[in-house]
Amino acid sequence: MNEPTYELYYWPGLPGRGEYIRLALEDAGAPYVDVARKPASEGGGPGALMAAMKSTEGLEPFAPPFLKCGNLTIAQVANILLFLGPRLDLTPADEGGRLGANQLQLTIADLISEVHDTHHPVSTALYFHEQVPEAVRAARSFVDQRMPKFLGYFARTLEKNGGEFMVGTAVSYVDLSIFHTLAGLEYAFPKASERAKSKYTGLYKLAERVAARPKIAAYLQSPRRLAFNENGIFRRYPELDLEPVGW
Amino acid sequence: MNEPTYELYYWPGLPGRGEYIRLALEDAGAPYVDVARKPASEGGGPGALMAAMKSTEGLEPFAPPFLKCGNLTIAQVANILLFLGPRLDLTPADEGGRLGANQLQLTIADLISEVHDTHHPVSTALYFHEQVPEAVRAARSFVDQRMPKFLGYFARTLEKNGGEFMVGTAVSYVDLSIFHTLAGLEYAFPKASERAKSKYTGLYKLAERVAARPKIAAYLQSPRRLAFNENGIFRRYPELDLEPVGW
Repeated sequence: MNEPTYELYYWPGLPGRGEYIRLALEDAGAPYVDVARKPASEGGGPGALMAAMKSTEGLEPFAPPFLKCGNLTIAQVANILLFLGPRLDLTPADEGGRLGANQLQLTIADLISEVHDTHHPVSTALYFHEQVPEAVRAARSFVDQRMPKFLGYFARTLEKNGGEFMVGTAVSYVDLSIFHTLAGLEYAFPKASERAKSKYTGLYKLAERVAARPKIAAYLQSPRRLAFNENGIFRRYPELDLEPVGW
Repeated sequence: MNEPTYELYYWPGLPGRGEYIRLALEDAGAPYVDVARKPASEGGGPGALMAAMKSTEGLEPFAPPFLKCGNLTIAQVANILLFLGPRLDLTPADEGGRLGANQLQLTIADLISEVHDTHHPVSTALYFHEQVPEAVRAARSFVDQRMPKFLGYFARTLEKNGGEFMVGTAVSYVDLSIFHTLAGLEYAFPKASERAKSKYTGLYKLAERVAARPKIAAYLQSPRRLAFNENGIFRRYPELDLEPVGW
């Protein structure tokens, strides 16, 4: 009975970056509270998130998601997963393997930051409709060059590691993150994702294996799994769903 | 005599992201080789970097910088510093402190990624001169909103921790990274940096203390310290050096 209850703080209403944390907690069957998704009357809502962010205990997060566990407050997705990995048995046991998992998670972070830049190339303070021409140019570059570069890298890494897991000899949070990232890309860029599926078959098979893991499968069917929408990282704008060229 | 020689791999000719690793190694007086800056005749140059990146041992880096140490190859700046921190005595000893250092380093990574986006908002595959109007819009948003948001966060964090160190009770790699980031901002955005100096005095005093550390001071005077230039993250384009508005 020593297992702590984790408190996850993330914006309600979108999967966003918080989803990478949820997937790890769900796959491990860890007890957690998704604080801001509770009603305000039960101490939840965005107000609870804002209050926790400005609380004077510990290091202030720059932005959600962040996790509270005991007297620790931990922000930045890769950092939260670095913390949770050994506790949830979702990272290799050796130092090299853990650094490898962290390296891959940070590379996923770079990818999703570039995905976000496709719909907000000029400024996160402006709406999409205020930067559409720039977004179309950014999406052209992302779809033709960056997406195959990142997916090719992850596919090679998987293959080099034996084809079953991204790192180490068992499922890690990196495998869960690859699953969610491919799902997000499929939502945001269906045309380029069709191409990717035929080219990076090993990676998509990994995603299928993750989706079929019993706790993940149950989670995906539950109301806790939020659908992608036009908030957050992966958004479906027809203007940006370009036919890929050159790969 | 158990200290390993670290091999740093980064593009020659620019400080870039590699500089965050150099500063940690230099401050600690650790033995290291900056491989790609050696002549090709001595096994250096960009060719050596490309060859090491594609070598089949260990996890492939997505991009430089990466560090070789024994049989480990480690990529991603924050991940390399996570590895080096305890070895160079440049991170807190407790888990919470180390996670805090990593969290702050990742927030610095987010900031410098946004700095890079000011001159390459549309695509890293295009030149600056191919995306100037977009870059000016991006710089407007960065200078007015993002720069004070990030620096205000770091200034609050420093103050909350007592004003001397960003995290923990001694110098860490985060302090070194703050120094370099402020230097880069001063190079790229002199006008906004003037404003920042008068507003975030504690942060700039920290940078002065870092620059005065004996090994850092010696390094800054040495040919090993590369000047900022129009390659890498921090670039001086007059079009983007905007007078800050609203802070």
